[in-house]
Amino acid sequence: MEWNVEDALKSLLEQKKYQALKDILVTMNPADIATVFEEINDEKIPRFFRLLPKELAAETFVEMEPEMQELLIRGFSDEELQDVIEELYVDDAVDIVEEMPANVVKRILAQAQPDMRKKINEILRYPDNSAGSIMTTEYVSLRPDMTIRDAINRIRRTGVDKETIYTCYITEGRKLLGFVTVKDLLLTSDDDKLVEEIMDTNVISVNTHTDQEEVAQTLSKYNFLALPVVDTENRMVGIVTFDDAMDVLEEETTEDIEIMAGITPSDKTYLRSNAFDLFKHRIPWLMLLMVSATFTGMIITGFESALAAQVVLTAFIPMLMDTGGNSGSQSSVTVIRALSLGELEFPDLPRVVLKEIETAVLCGVSLSAICFIKIMVVDRMLLGNTDITPLTALVVCLTMAVTVLIAKVIGCILPMIAKKLGFDPAVMASPFITTTVDALSLLVYFGIASALLFHT
Amino acid sequence: MEWNVEDALKSLLEQKKYQALKDILVTMNPADIATVFEEINDEKIPRFFRLLPKELAAETFVEMEPEMQELLIRGFSDEELQDVIEELYVDDAVDIVEEMPANVVKRILAQAQPDMRKKINEILRYPDNSAGSIMTTEYVSLRPDMTIRDAINRIRRTGVDKETIYTCYITEGRKLLGFVTVKDLLLTSDDDKLVEEIMDTNVISVNTHTDQEEVAQTLSKYNFLALPVVDTENRMVGIVTFDDAMDVLEEETTEDIEIMAGITPSDKTYLRSNAFDLFKHRIPWLMLLMVSATFTGMIITGFESALAAQVVLTAFIPMLMDTGGNSGSQSSVTVIRALSLGELEFPDLPRVVLKEIETAVLCGVSLSAICFIKIMVVDRMLLGNTDITPLTALVVCLTMAVTVLIAKVIGCILPMIAKKLGFDPAVMASPFITTTVDALSLLVYFGIASALLFHT
Repeated sequence: MEWNVEDALKSLLEQKKYQALKDILVTMNPADIATVFEEINDEKIPRFFRLLPKELAAETFVEMEPEMQELLIRGFSDEELQDVIEELYVDDAVDIVEEMPANVVKRILAQAQPDMRKKINEILRYPDNSAGSIMTTEYVSLRPDMTIRDAINRIRRTGVDKETIYTCYITEGRKLLGFVTVKDLLLTSDDDKLVEEIMDTNVISVNTHTDQEEVAQTLSKYNFLALPVVDTENRMVGIVTFDDAMDVLEEETTEDIEIMAGITPSDKTYLRSNAFDLFKHRIPWLMLLMVSATFTGMIITGFESALAAQVVLTAFIPMLMDTGGNSGSQSSVTVIRALSLGELEFPDLPRVVLKEIETAVLCGVSLSAICFIKIMVVDRMLLGNTDITPLTALVVCLTMAVTVLIAKVIGCILPMIAKKLGFDPAVMASPFITTTVDALSLLVYFGIASALLFHT
Repeated sequence: MEWNVEDALKSLLEQKKYQALKDILVTMNPADIATVFEEINDEKIPRFFRLLPKELAAETFVEMEPEMQELLIRGFSDEELQDVIEELYVDDAVDIVEEMPANVVKRILAQAQPDMRKKINEILRYPDNSAGSIMTTEYVSLRPDMTIRDAINRIRRTGVDKETIYTCYITEGRKLLGFVTVKDLLLTSDDDKLVEEIMDTNVISVNTHTDQEEVAQTLSKYNFLALPVVDTENRMVGIVTFDDAMDVLEEETTEDIEIMAGITPSDKTYLRSNAFDLFKHRIPWLMLLMVSATFTGMIITGFESALAAQVVLTAFIPMLMDTGGNSGSQSSVTVIRALSLGELEFPDLPRVVLKEIETAVLCGVSLSAICFIKIMVVDRMLLGNTDITPLTALVVCLTMAVTVLIAKVIGCILPMIAKKLGFDPAVMASPFITTTVDALSLLVYFGIASALLFHT
């Protein structure tokens, strides 16, 4: 669908049918216009953009990728830039400023109205990924002694510049006293009632320094449209809205998934990253894990002479290592996700370990049983590998059961300890667990083989 | 904090200070009350619950885990059950009904008002995970020829039962014509204007059968509070609100993460799953991957005699397999996430493959170079393993470069093909890639070794 719209728009532009083009664009959503812009030839973008009415232009601008925004800003006259900035909400303006190179930032701040410039600078002061850095300062505040009629009038008068009008905050000397929703205001039949009579004083707020992931999760837990942000003296300074919270949750989850796969997190989307970007984010873990594999190599070298005598044992190394690795990642990934959703806390550790041990026993016993049958039937009888004795199969199956147990226990403990120590638990996922479990499973394998095979 | 609140509440209950208990509970948020309930001794729950005022009771009920809900329903008198059902929004009632055993469902439907029962049954007809199954039928509808004054009055009169009043839908004969927000209504200064003059006719809607993940992503893309759901004849049947969309996104992401770790997805949270639940969801992939490791075993057995002559080669098998596996999961996980965020589509496949090849070359070359140095310096000189010749190191490093290339290409192609064929791309993540890459890397290893070592 987007393809056709885009083609139609392009051909209208080429035929210079600007009025028709404008008529179509104004019916579209900012997010869709931005998508079309991204797909269109760069040099025509400014001409397209000038066709948009002021407000739609600003809304579309916010939805674009930073590269496109920079291109447009560089093409804007001072007046055009002023128009766009004036229409932006402060938090969106800050997002843009954060992505731009220094000279563009300087120009944006120079063209912003003094009031807007002050607000942008205030938010820029907060640390990255804090509530302060993602909030907007444009919210509706009401006084406790207003009547509902006054409150509605105030909303109607001042609401146009606010990111949301649906949750209003009641403050006195900037101290946050409570909140009231527009639904509460509209559905109260007596317009002369005071705001303080209907406001909810049990207001959940976050601090300017609260981590953005916690902010997003609080918002999601209580299904709020917005969450007030207060400073250390409980003075209200801004709000975080649900749409920003959704973006934060998406970003943080992508980051978790990347870390779990041994990738250092990146802000850029896949298609916007070039091969060198991808390389930079992937090579550190690959390098680290390759070097740490020295241990597995040393273990095998240590048992080299034994292996030379019983080469058949080598054939089962990949299976044992993979089963251990998979068992471990199952546990670690489950625990990491539960930690990041707030379902698990450190004090749950004993319960978690117990549950993983029980699960490991169930998995280990069934895997070993099937594995024993598989080795005897498939490997020995069907594939005719007569080097494989029932004792070999026993060694392999015992190793498997022990490895699964070790892997599951390590897999659940490491992320919880990491979290407790203040590290990101996601670091303790597959690549790390795999390497640790590889080394341990080889030690177990050769240990059991030495006991059962080499000395008999 | 929750610990203290809970302790205080428990002791108040034991001292039978019901009024004080009630005074505290009414100041709390439903989600927090539900958390406290979950932590409290089961038999006291009904007594606690009866202290809550009707509306708060229903809101708290919605936030509870299904086990707790079932326990309460079984303890309710018919009248108590009626009171709770009456306060529920239809979509919440459906969520509850879906989790309950048949006899409880029967009782709920028997106690619901005929109108509510009809609505619940309507939503239950839609397929699982469809827009229809997560929507609510309680939305504000307006007629196009209403004045803004009429519209606001209608909202004030009928809004109390609606899940959201902030986006209102304009319909004529149930056909969806457009939407208007309460912000638009309040900020329009002329109350005599008609709704059709200010409504937005470019309304984005989803079909009752649209997948819930697509619904949630559409809502998140446009930052809407609610999204209208229409039937095949464009008649409006309900809305999906942002809070349900957030829950869907969280669920779907958890599901993706689980599948990527080789776990069949589960509805239960980690702490609510017992060891047998975990076992059931983890064993299928472990079993499948263990059995498929027969191939790696066969490859090694095939080269057994060669390995017996050059046992030193065995020491590098874990490193080669892990590096291949990690490289492959990096690509597959990145691509799977980009697919699920809608950043990638199947036609991007050639670009993706090209990018992965470039990245693989960069990673392969640097890994091989460092690996060669590591083998010669650490393994040969420091650890004194004189079986390792420069030629052995060359075989290992060549294998590594080729394996990384194969792993990254397979890692990006498989998820995209899976998606194209209508499977969940997440299935093509780590465990699957690891097993495939293991077998291929061994073939490459022995192939290169045969060419360079055994014939010289």
